[in-house]
Amino acid sequence: MKYSTIKILPLFLGGILFSQSKQDSLQFRNIADEILVNGTAYENLHQLTKNIGHRLSGSDAYEKATDWAVLKLKEAGADKVWKEEVMVPVWERGKESLQIKDQNGKWKPLRMLSLGNSEGTKGKNVEAEIVFVKNKEDFDKLPDAAIKGKIVFFNYAFNQKFISTGQAYGDAGKYRRSAASWAGKRGAKAVIIRSLSSAFDDVPHTGMMRYDADDTFKIAAVAIGPKSADELEKTLKTQKVIAKLNSNCAMKGEKLSHSVIGEITGNKDKSVIVVGGHLDSWDVGEGAQDDGAGIVQSIEILRAFKKMGLKNNHTIRVVCFANEENGVKGGNKYAENIKKNNENHIFAIETDGGGFTPRGIALVMSPEKRQQVQSWKNLFLPYGVYNFDMQYAGTDIEPMEPLGVPLAELVPDSQRYFDIHHSDEDTFDKVNRRELLLGATTMGQLIYMIDKSW
Amino acid sequence: MKYSTIKILPLFLGGILFSQSKQDSLQFRNIADEILVNGTAYENLHQLTKNIGHRLSGSDAYEKATDWAVLKLKEAGADKVWKEEVMVPVWERGKESLQIKDQNGKWKPLRMLSLGNSEGTKGKNVEAEIVFVKNKEDFDKLPDAAIKGKIVFFNYAFNQKFISTGQAYGDAGKYRRSAASWAGKRGAKAVIIRSLSSAFDDVPHTGMMRYDADDTFKIAAVAIGPKSADELEKTLKTQKVIAKLNSNCAMKGEKLSHSVIGEITGNKDKSVIVVGGHLDSWDVGEGAQDDGAGIVQSIEILRAFKKMGLKNNHTIRVVCFANEENGVKGGNKYAENIKKNNENHIFAIETDGGGFTPRGIALVMSPEKRQQVQSWKNLFLPYGVYNFDMQYAGTDIEPMEPLGVPLAELVPDSQRYFDIHHSDEDTFDKVNRRELLLGATTMGQLIYMIDKSW
Repeated sequence: MKYSTIKILPLFLGGILFSQSKQDSLQFRNIADEILVNGTAYENLHQLTKNIGHRLSGSDAYEKATDWAVLKLKEAGADKVWKEEVMVPVWERGKESLQIKDQNGKWKPLRMLSLGNSEGTKGKNVEAEIVFVKNKEDFDKLPDAAIKGKIVFFNYAFNQKFISTGQAYGDAGKYRRSAASWAGKRGAKAVIIRSLSSAFDDVPHTGMMRYDADDTFKIAAVAIGPKSADELEKTLKTQKVIAKLNSNCAMKGEKLSHSVIGEITGNKDKSVIVVGGHLDSWDVGEGAQDDGAGIVQSIEILRAFKKMGLKNNHTIRVVCFANEENGVKGGNKYAENIKKNNENHIFAIETDGGGFTPRGIALVMSPEKRQQVQSWKNLFLPYGVYNFDMQYAGTDIEPMEPLGVPLAELVPDSQRYFDIHHSDEDTFDKVNRRELLLGATTMGQLIYMIDKSW
Repeated sequence: MKYSTIKILPLFLGGILFSQSKQDSLQFRNIADEILVNGTAYENLHQLTKNIGHRLSGSDAYEKATDWAVLKLKEAGADKVWKEEVMVPVWERGKESLQIKDQNGKWKPLRMLSLGNSEGTKGKNVEAEIVFVKNKEDFDKLPDAAIKGKIVFFNYAFNQKFISTGQAYGDAGKYRRSAASWAGKRGAKAVIIRSLSSAFDDVPHTGMMRYDADDTFKIAAVAIGPKSADELEKTLKTQKVIAKLNSNCAMKGEKLSHSVIGEITGNKDKSVIVVGGHLDSWDVGEGAQDDGAGIVQSIEILRAFKKMGLKNNHTIRVVCFANEENGVKGGNKYAENIKKNNENHIFAIETDGGGFTPRGIALVMSPEKRQQVQSWKNLFLPYGVYNFDMQYAGTDIEPMEPLGVPLAELVPDSQRYFDIHHSDEDTFDKVNRRELLLGATTMGQLIYMIDKSW
């Protein structure tokens, strides 16, 4: 295409300069310029993903990532950097395979991933007939005899009608979280789910599941890609299918680990503004969008503020949370410690929806504070950030809600995230430099406003 | 990340149901559902990019693409499909290479692409010292003696500060379009430009250049990737560099070609609403985002309307324009013909900014019509479409402006487009299914409103 005849009305800018403080508008521009031109987030993400790669809680790679984060926070100019101790669960995948027997009696392997935190088959073959259900309602209608001794296959698809894919993910989430419990309680041998994916490829996606406290037998739970799921459903309509699952995943107790924290000291007081993401990832792919992006964006804000010599009133603290994916131990410990140490937190923002082009900021705070942030909307509009109506906050900062801390989460464009989330496809090449830096810009601009206003 | 605790306020929906017609809001939803669930645009784009690939005007591939478009429009349910004859320029690239001589006298090849429509070196080596300038101002300051007989290298970088990359592209565009004329007039042997790219990789990007009518000697013009450009600039600061260019590109006259048109007849009258993109591409990559996306999105709208049995008042016409990239002959011929045939066109929209997640609609029309479209904004908000302030229209429909036709262009998110535009990187895998379908949804929704209102 050509843009030779582009004519863009300076509507937004005009509106801002007269209705909002000119200084804020200029400072927004300065923050954007610094990050878009000199930002190091993209190069940092390349290091994290390529030199360390995926980094599940409890793994050696995760501890390597904590050392890397300490170094990066120091390089960015933090006045103080430390590791916060936290006990995390250790879950290990090990070797795993899933096969189905075709009409000629030949075994055919399916691409699969055991779900995070699930128990495996202890290296033994679990062989059984597959019983297919579309959803929980169909499952509930089946008699116990149809489930007992079988491998239950739930093929509940991601609902493409939702515009925010986060809503579709929420809608399908119970199958990943709970299907093993539902089926285990009724005597099934194992459970297969369709991956929580917005794509139509054959990539399997992992993610956290849990057993109920009253589950007497913890059955193995695995995910297959959307394509395999649809093919399997089709096959099951005309014939019986036997599956053979062999997996070694298991919980291996707990281990001492760390969140990583760095801050620039407040010039006026010691109250704290938190910006963060989670440093851990699943044990597949490179944890690039989930949530390497959030980590490097948070560090980027500290770097930019320091470089620009912004005189922050309050302490601005970057928190790289441990263990978001399979326990939220980092987030819980952080909230516990601020209570214990009697620290005053005036605001916390997390980003864990990927480093995609930003569209808004979700707010969880009092109606008064919410309205105040929404009143800054015109300052954000020239940066494509317009949606301040959503109401949710990151998993790691939610434990601060009962302490009365106003919370927020960056709302990046959601269309591509669940194509790659928790899978081997979540790699550096899926991240765009400008999109990543714009996300950091939005959060930096919000922190600038809150630091001067609260 | 987890979305388990997502809480989304039904603010938008509430607002719409009471302030706008409930029926419009429901019809918007129906159009979105049909396209997001049953849309074939993504599969069609796979066919176009993988079975045909790039398709420069005048090439056999382009003519193959016209047959494919006829077939797809028929499959989509068009009442009438035809080809519109148009003479297009034929430009051919041929073999080409650019080398620079290092300090040891060894030649090193640089990745390069001749600029579209440029003349080459007729297969002969053009060897000369490189003279570096950052921009036009620096070039103007150089004495003729410093330019004559040299190869001039312009390293004007894409300005990362613009939030809309289209503006950065516009800002840098004159170097691609005019550098050969500037340098040729002052006796240079050839010109090298930094590619118009938002990335920092080494991918060269082509695109249209032109000679001035009074250029006595048409010198060769080539582009190199950003990385090579920066390295070359660095080298030139400490030493002389000799370059050797050999290229065979040339204009080869004209050829009869075709735009492809398909329509569903209006139920009330014969006035026409146009939706389109351009079927041609540059001779590199696969023309996926530029503008295969626009073609399959336009066809998608026709398919969805037909499938849904929407009773369109006016004729809805898909135009797959010929020769946008290097001549705009298709767009000019189309405007010429509607005047000749005395057809009444009430609206035309083009999309040529890629099949990325939509953010708005740019409008070129009377203030009254503009205001009316802007008054529909709340209907679009739940789909992430909020920006109705920009004022430009696609290159192919611009020739309709003097005829008084109200024009629009889809405004997709611009962050990733110029990383791949006009390069070997513009391939199918850069397109996301949901983003592509959402773009079609936005245009379909707008056409629904205009069809019932105008």
